[in-house]
Amino acid sequence: MTELHDQRVILSPGPVTTSAATKQAARRDFTPNEPELLALTAEMRERLVGIVNGTDRYACVPLQGVGNTANEATLGTLVPRDRRLLIVNNGFYGVRLTQIAEGIGVPFATLDLPWTEPVTAAQLEAALAADPTISHAVVCHVDTGTGLLNPIEPLAEVARRREVALIVDAIASFGGLPIDAAALDLEAIVLSPNKWLEGLPGIGLVVARRAALEAAAGRAHSFCLDLHRQWRGLESDGRWRFTPPGQTLAALVAALRQHAEEGQAARFERVRRNWRCLVDGLRALGFETYLRDEVASPVIATFHEPADPNYDRARLFELVWQRGFVLFRGKLTREPTLRIGCMGAFDQEVMGQVVRAIAEAMAAMGVRDGRPARAQVAAE
Amino acid sequence: MTELHDQRVILSPGPVTTSAATKQAARRDFTPNEPELLALTAEMRERLVGIVNGTDRYACVPLQGVGNTANEATLGTLVPRDRRLLIVNNGFYGVRLTQIAEGIGVPFATLDLPWTEPVTAAQLEAALAADPTISHAVVCHVDTGTGLLNPIEPLAEVARRREVALIVDAIASFGGLPIDAAALDLEAIVLSPNKWLEGLPGIGLVVARRAALEAAAGRAHSFCLDLHRQWRGLESDGRWRFTPPGQTLAALVAALRQHAEEGQAARFERVRRNWRCLVDGLRALGFETYLRDEVASPVIATFHEPADPNYDRARLFELVWQRGFVLFRGKLTREPTLRIGCMGAFDQEVMGQVVRAIAEAMAAMGVRDGRPARAQVAAE
Repeated sequence: MTELHDQRVILSPGPVTTSAATKQAARRDFTPNEPELLALTAEMRERLVGIVNGTDRYACVPLQGVGNTANEATLGTLVPRDRRLLIVNNGFYGVRLTQIAEGIGVPFATLDLPWTEPVTAAQLEAALAADPTISHAVVCHVDTGTGLLNPIEPLAEVARRREVALIVDAIASFGGLPIDAAALDLEAIVLSPNKWLEGLPGIGLVVARRAALEAAAGRAHSFCLDLHRQWRGLESDGRWRFTPPGQTLAALVAALRQHAEEGQAARFERVRRNWRCLVDGLRALGFETYLRDEVASPVIATFHEPADPNYDRARLFELVWQRGFVLFRGKLTREPTLRIGCMGAFDQEVMGQVVRAIAEAMAAMGVRDGRPARAQVAAE
Repeated sequence: MTELHDQRVILSPGPVTTSAATKQAARRDFTPNEPELLALTAEMRERLVGIVNGTDRYACVPLQGVGNTANEATLGTLVPRDRRLLIVNNGFYGVRLTQIAEGIGVPFATLDLPWTEPVTAAQLEAALAADPTISHAVVCHVDTGTGLLNPIEPLAEVARRREVALIVDAIASFGGLPIDAAALDLEAIVLSPNKWLEGLPGIGLVVARRAALEAAAGRAHSFCLDLHRQWRGLESDGRWRFTPPGQTLAALVAALRQHAEEGQAARFERVRRNWRCLVDGLRALGFETYLRDEVASPVIATFHEPADPNYDRARLFELVWQRGFVLFRGKLTREPTLRIGCMGAFDQEVMGQVVRAIAEAMAAMGVRDGRPARAQVAAE
């Protein structure tokens, strides 16, 4: 069983399965500010800015925490309190952004949309036109909840024309989907080390316009989650303001080197093949996806849960676990769904084994097919 | 050289050298909320409450971050904004607490004292008597900057009598020095996974009175650094509110089991022997300590830097590094000092090698003795 643990494949939208080399890089002790740790910090920052073509107008600011921490630091540091933030709200993480803004007292408006369709440029345009106090807008590039992809290029065009600073929550897209910070003139990009980049969790990361960081002195609501102070510290001597998570940092640099070696486009295609294999495989078992393929990103596939009375979610997880795969336990809050992550250090051959494991689990439970309630009604 | 890296000993006041078993425990992938991760979370919380005799009146609240994050979350969540916090300010981390309170808008007063003497009950009593708006006081148990130890028992007695809630920043003492939360009726204890406990950095931890957490709903200045919401989430379903740093968690649980096996008193004695060996060894080389032994805790020894013109700090670090030891680069801001951590998964035999490495480095640099400027003047 221990053997199995060590090799098991995590099918989560993050943290994802990491490579042996990445895990090995974390197997070291670090003292704060030793030269090797500072070199790793510099390499991480440079590589992350490079991935989004940040040029020298952008800087990477890491902080101790996770994606939510980085989102909070970004909104709390960059949005002036006498202006307003527009939050595109069409998914679980749109809701989360509203919770963060509310929790830290950033004035905001929301552009509320269904969870199954991307936001359009016209919708953003109308929302910005309706409220001239809006100085910043934030959109979740890929919603990890559903997998919905909001194309940012048309949004960036509208934002630039209206002189609104666009912040992209790219936690589920950075390192997989192309983002050109300089060309899109983005204000800030929030990212995760443990999704497309295949690193370990424990660092919150932002790539932000230097001018925006510069202008944000004294604005943050928090001492620790203050991007301006974090950035100032790093720029002055290359050191983290507080104890760096050295192991997570070392793992991320190892993972970034692997990302560069594979190439971002190739990584995207690998994950897309994982996703295709999974969606086709589960559809063949009767499952239906929550999203149309056209609006889905390959980070995760969300399926309605089967209506068959023999279907037992806990048992499915157990049976699949026995076969070496760890399914993600998260659900959408609104509907019973099975969500399976496709990113991570594995390929479609492994995903084929996952599909087989699910098929075997269904058979073991006596579930005839994976159709959800609605589809079965329609078919009867 | 790679060989050396893997075995090298970190002489920092945290993060410290960890055992092979602790590092190995982190060498796994975790998906959020999988049963094993939830079991590790529960075990971590229970063990940490147990270490300070928290009884069932206390709960452990972990959050993504580090010690500063945990201090910020504690002050921001527990202190009502219409009352005032008294900060005992007699060291680097007393200053840090004032920076945090100022940064997040918690009203505070300071009890300013020299950095070389512990705060007394009479001093606390006078400060509390002078300002009846004070509802909470916070004291740093051991200042990692100097190693100064503030005995908390007499302070707790004063705080209880005056009905002021006492928060202890026990980041540099938890797991080494005895703390009895229930007997001292403490409000909250902030701790670190990567000092006495010998875990990895990346989790901020608080053990707080349940009644205080309960009463703090809606008070925090931050969405992420809100102890109340973190606690509520954990109590409801055992899950972390946001992506848990699974590897750091697994390492901490492994480290806590080792801590229990060794016993806290035995661990303290081991570290004290490390400290004794270091202080005696460096005094024999002419070094002088910043603190009198009577007020020093063994977490770190702080030495004045030698006055000898041949002394070269960077070269010392390099020479000691070549011998397999990583010195800590932190300095006190006020005076040139060499600070050497004594905690970590090693014993006095290793510390003896450290003293020899420093002696060899001094000889290689041509430094006759380690006396600081003042002492040399006095001796002439």
